[in-house]
Amino acid sequence: MPKVTFLPSQRQVTVAEGENLLRAAMLAGVHVNASCGGQGACGKCRVLLESGQVEDGFSERLSEEDRAQGFRLACRSTVREDLQVRIPIESQLDSRILTLQPPGQGVAFQLPDKDAAWLQERDLFVPPFDLKYLELEPPGAANNENDLNRLLRHLREKEDESGLQVDFDFIRKLPDTLREDDFKVTVALARPVKPERQSVLVNVQPGDRTKEHYALAVDIGTTTIYGQLLDLFTGQVLAEEGAYNAQISYGEDVISRIMYALKPGGLEKMQQVVVGTINEIIHQLLARTEVNPDDISYLTVAGNTTMTQLFLAVQPKYIRLSPYTPAACCYPLVKAVDLGLDLGRHVPTLVFPAVASYVGGDVVAGVLGSMMYLEEPLTLFIDLGTNGEIVIGNREWLACAACSAGPAFEGGGIEHGMRATKGAIEDFSLNPLTCEPMITTVGMARPKGICGSGLINIVAALFEAGLIDERGKFQTDLPTDRVRRGESGLEYVLAFAQDTDVGRDITLNEIDIDNLIRAKGAMYSGYLTLLEGVGLSVENLDRVILAGGFGRYVNIEKAITVGLLPELPLEKFSYIGNGSLLGARMVALSNRLRADVWRIINMTTNFELSEVAAYMDYYVGSLFLPHTERRYFPAVNERISQMHQVTGRLCREKA
Amino acid sequence: MPKVTFLPSQRQVTVAEGENLLRAAMLAGVHVNASCGGQGACGKCRVLLESGQVEDGFSERLSEEDRAQGFRLACRSTVREDLQVRIPIESQLDSRILTLQPPGQGVAFQLPDKDAAWLQERDLFVPPFDLKYLELEPPGAANNENDLNRLLRHLREKEDESGLQVDFDFIRKLPDTLREDDFKVTVALARPVKPERQSVLVNVQPGDRTKEHYALAVDIGTTTIYGQLLDLFTGQVLAEEGAYNAQISYGEDVISRIMYALKPGGLEKMQQVVVGTINEIIHQLLARTEVNPDDISYLTVAGNTTMTQLFLAVQPKYIRLSPYTPAACCYPLVKAVDLGLDLGRHVPTLVFPAVASYVGGDVVAGVLGSMMYLEEPLTLFIDLGTNGEIVIGNREWLACAACSAGPAFEGGGIEHGMRATKGAIEDFSLNPLTCEPMITTVGMARPKGICGSGLINIVAALFEAGLIDERGKFQTDLPTDRVRRGESGLEYVLAFAQDTDVGRDITLNEIDIDNLIRAKGAMYSGYLTLLEGVGLSVENLDRVILAGGFGRYVNIEKAITVGLLPELPLEKFSYIGNGSLLGARMVALSNRLRADVWRIINMTTNFELSEVAAYMDYYVGSLFLPHTERRYFPAVNERISQMHQVTGRLCREKA
Repeated sequence: MPKVTFLPSQRQVTVAEGENLLRAAMLAGVHVNASCGGQGACGKCRVLLESGQVEDGFSERLSEEDRAQGFRLACRSTVREDLQVRIPIESQLDSRILTLQPPGQGVAFQLPDKDAAWLQERDLFVPPFDLKYLELEPPGAANNENDLNRLLRHLREKEDESGLQVDFDFIRKLPDTLREDDFKVTVALARPVKPERQSVLVNVQPGDRTKEHYALAVDIGTTTIYGQLLDLFTGQVLAEEGAYNAQISYGEDVISRIMYALKPGGLEKMQQVVVGTINEIIHQLLARTEVNPDDISYLTVAGNTTMTQLFLAVQPKYIRLSPYTPAACCYPLVKAVDLGLDLGRHVPTLVFPAVASYVGGDVVAGVLGSMMYLEEPLTLFIDLGTNGEIVIGNREWLACAACSAGPAFEGGGIEHGMRATKGAIEDFSLNPLTCEPMITTVGMARPKGICGSGLINIVAALFEAGLIDERGKFQTDLPTDRVRRGESGLEYVLAFAQDTDVGRDITLNEIDIDNLIRAKGAMYSGYLTLLEGVGLSVENLDRVILAGGFGRYVNIEKAITVGLLPELPLEKFSYIGNGSLLGARMVALSNRLRADVWRIINMTTNFELSEVAAYMDYYVGSLFLPHTERRYFPAVNERISQMHQVTGRLCREKA
Repeated sequence: MPKVTFLPSQRQVTVAEGENLLRAAMLAGVHVNASCGGQGACGKCRVLLESGQVEDGFSERLSEEDRAQGFRLACRSTVREDLQVRIPIESQLDSRILTLQPPGQGVAFQLPDKDAAWLQERDLFVPPFDLKYLELEPPGAANNENDLNRLLRHLREKEDESGLQVDFDFIRKLPDTLREDDFKVTVALARPVKPERQSVLVNVQPGDRTKEHYALAVDIGTTTIYGQLLDLFTGQVLAEEGAYNAQISYGEDVISRIMYALKPGGLEKMQQVVVGTINEIIHQLLARTEVNPDDISYLTVAGNTTMTQLFLAVQPKYIRLSPYTPAACCYPLVKAVDLGLDLGRHVPTLVFPAVASYVGGDVVAGVLGSMMYLEEPLTLFIDLGTNGEIVIGNREWLACAACSAGPAFEGGGIEHGMRATKGAIEDFSLNPLTCEPMITTVGMARPKGICGSGLINIVAALFEAGLIDERGKFQTDLPTDRVRRGESGLEYVLAFAQDTDVGRDITLNEIDIDNLIRAKGAMYSGYLTLLEGVGLSVENLDRVILAGGFGRYVNIEKAITVGLLPELPLEKFSYIGNGSLLGARMVALSNRLRADVWRIINMTTNFELSEVAAYMDYYVGSLFLPHTERRYFPAVNERISQMHQVTGRLCREKA
């Protein structure tokens, strides 16, 4: 893998061959002015190649002379070999500032996948269904007992399976199936989660199908639904598919879905629509893998409380009405066909139950997937989103809460906010002295707006550089035209109109910043409330696990800088991916872990934050960058003080 | 109740006020020539009133002079007071014959109904569902646990109900229902049949509904379906309704239904059609009783194997293909709505399983209703029909068999045969010397044909009087024009065209008689096969229980005379009514008896008669009136010998 050395700082980074040079600089923590997102339009990201060659690197903003001298536009350069790259003077940071800015992308390391091997090592690969191939004696004049008895007797005598329950649909399928291949059949036995309960005969197929055995795991997100097709014979994930939740047409957030469900026929409609999306995913998974639908035995589904109740057509009205009560703490297995899913009549659906109205089955699945409920370390589990869910605890206890963060982490409520799709500014660096930005966008396209992770990175950089104070208010005496008074008050220009894809300046204003501060304040005061509620504090945390799409991209250092994440060493942070899907998969592969769903529910205490007197105090205290209480963020405060000594700006006045 | 004395025989009978005088004579065993069925058309049933008055009694066949003398037509006379009635000479029997003819209707006494009181006395009135009225603490800010937990906690703490299972539809109903009457609700708990299993929460209703609790019991007959609405609070039968099984349009017998079900969509059609009839009955029961459908908790259904499999949409094809295997020996509870029934989503259906392809759930229900499986006496249980089912045994063992009797008992295969509807000849007496008949019809209408019980009574009388021999062949030297050679050979004219409702002579020919002999032979050889199979014989039988519609009307003496029933004292015979419906009702009222369904199944040995070598021998031996082996019917043989001495006819030549 090529190594890129940036001069004069000597900072080095090893990147994948084919990486973009501007991204390489961002990864190395090296600032290069850049504001067009990677299209070569602004021409600001000129760098001088001192050794090695890049692919491309040109645009009309680079003169023939520049080219000849070895200048390239970083945003247009593809790294193919080791390079020495000099940052020109206009992009260089003051060396003292460089020292204060930590290098590295700062994202959490991803926890190793809990795959089949992982489960097998722990003796947890115990699929919830067993397939058994049976060769029955065909009936004759002297022995014409009924089909079911014949089968049950064989199972009792030859397979030591007795006391079985029988599913009604099994009986419907039995007579014809037995005779399809001369009384040679494969039966599926659903195993009980408690050993003292009965196994259930649920499916019968002609011939030997014991090696063709599959399950599905589904995560129903408010926006996106993911499904995985699992091989219950090997434990492998055969395929994964995702699709937008078609309920989006009826409202973007859970509240508008709940409101829609209150209309006549609305609940049924919401149910059909989400099932429609899941069916689409199932069809894609089956088509890709050429798996026979009849070989699927099991479906596990996790989602937030509202998504779960809509999926099950259980009235979600009371989720949004005080005192916010979900319908149930547990759901019996439901037949997939009874929900409208295109699966065999024998397929049961295990639905993860919720802890509370705003701490749903997706969080339960995530906690299960994280294994934090089985381990010693005191863990903070965070799923960031409009509704931010927090779980704190270890194998002895769990406490959870939901923080109403608002849509800022998803780019909502921000003037130029957008989802993390092509053209969204996702990373940001700032030259504190010149106030010039370095931006990268999703897909290296011309910028269209700012996504959630970009928002955090921008605010962190503005704050560190002293362009905004701890209340998020802009300084006005800055040596730049990028901070100016716009229609919504003071703002910073991330990209001027000519460099964007939207034909107008992309800016971040104080109202946007305030939205972020309130969002991160809601989260941080949530951690404090839970920790204080059990007599602990932030420094007791042994680790932080991030889940959800947002967790993958958030820069930990910068999220700490703004006070969204607690100040802990980077190595204590890890990322679990889609925790909901992970938990759903683990339960689909492990009947032992299935019991842990109820275990997690039972060991979790929900804190309804609006009912905890201290929460509002914590919240108000969290409405500063990084926090009113300096002691929570000693390193951030120290770094910023030093930064201010360099820049000569002193933003912090509060003691 | 008025007493009627017939002269000169002095035979007396006590009848209900309003009884028809001809029927009174039949009840008393007094012969009166009569062949128009009760319409006063033939004028033969003239009798002389010697004391007391009747209502009506006239027709144009009676002259003014007759009337003045006190003659009346018995068939038109209604008994209102004590009477002395003289039978005129042309109707009188020889006194020796009279002595040989036993008086009385000869039907089996009906077993006392096993009603709520009967069940209560035996501690068996244990409805399968409990209703509990609960006043829950409404949720508040400090206690916003989910609805299900709130309920389960209350049940655990206040009602000592723990470890409950929860039905999924219960959860769907819960949130809204809890809030309908301020968290005061009635819940329905389905009790397990085995105490160690879990109870299931299946229904929730607002307010206190504990006194409104109902169940349904249904008997699905091939021809007719009966339903009862039961009050689970009192144990009473509130209403009963019957309707023709709408499957009749697709074939009269089970075989044609099975064939129809083999067509594409045929099985679904058969299922929908029978469910349609049951829904009709349910609607009638609810309308009559004004019971709220949501207060029905339970449905029990019994039917023969084919009816059961069609009702459940379980392929019945293999019932009619050798070696005749039913699908299952047990059915799990099925949701009534999943079968298409218009009942609440919480209502489970208990379906009686079959012992064999031709010994179905209706017989199991009948055996349960008879209690023979719990008692000491060796019992013969008989359900007469096209498919005649026999069960022999007691509390220690049960053996069963199905006899293919053909349709003779239902009037089928008989030239003038018909179902027991208006105008069917149902009772018959014969003056052996004059060969003149006395007939009564259903509804006292002009005769249209002969029903099953009529057929037995006619053949018995013809045989007793020596008009036919033990092979069912007519004598030819008889002093009557009623025995003649018709298109189908020799025949007896029951009613001449002018006295009938069909405009032609109603006759019984030797082919008809042969059909009856084969039908009764199939039954009797069945008893012998089962008894011999366990080393017993007819004289070991302590009692005979008749079930089914036919059992109500069959004259026991005459059925013995033809060899359909074993020769035992009349008091050993009893009639249980619709055993299938009785059993279905008892299980609906008694969760304790529910376990006995499986007990009966497990203790019953099915004899496939076609596979028992001895059966064919027994069958051939039974193709005589009453039987080849004189020892089986000593009293009948004795009576007939004496009768022949009077009539001078000697029909029996075989030693």
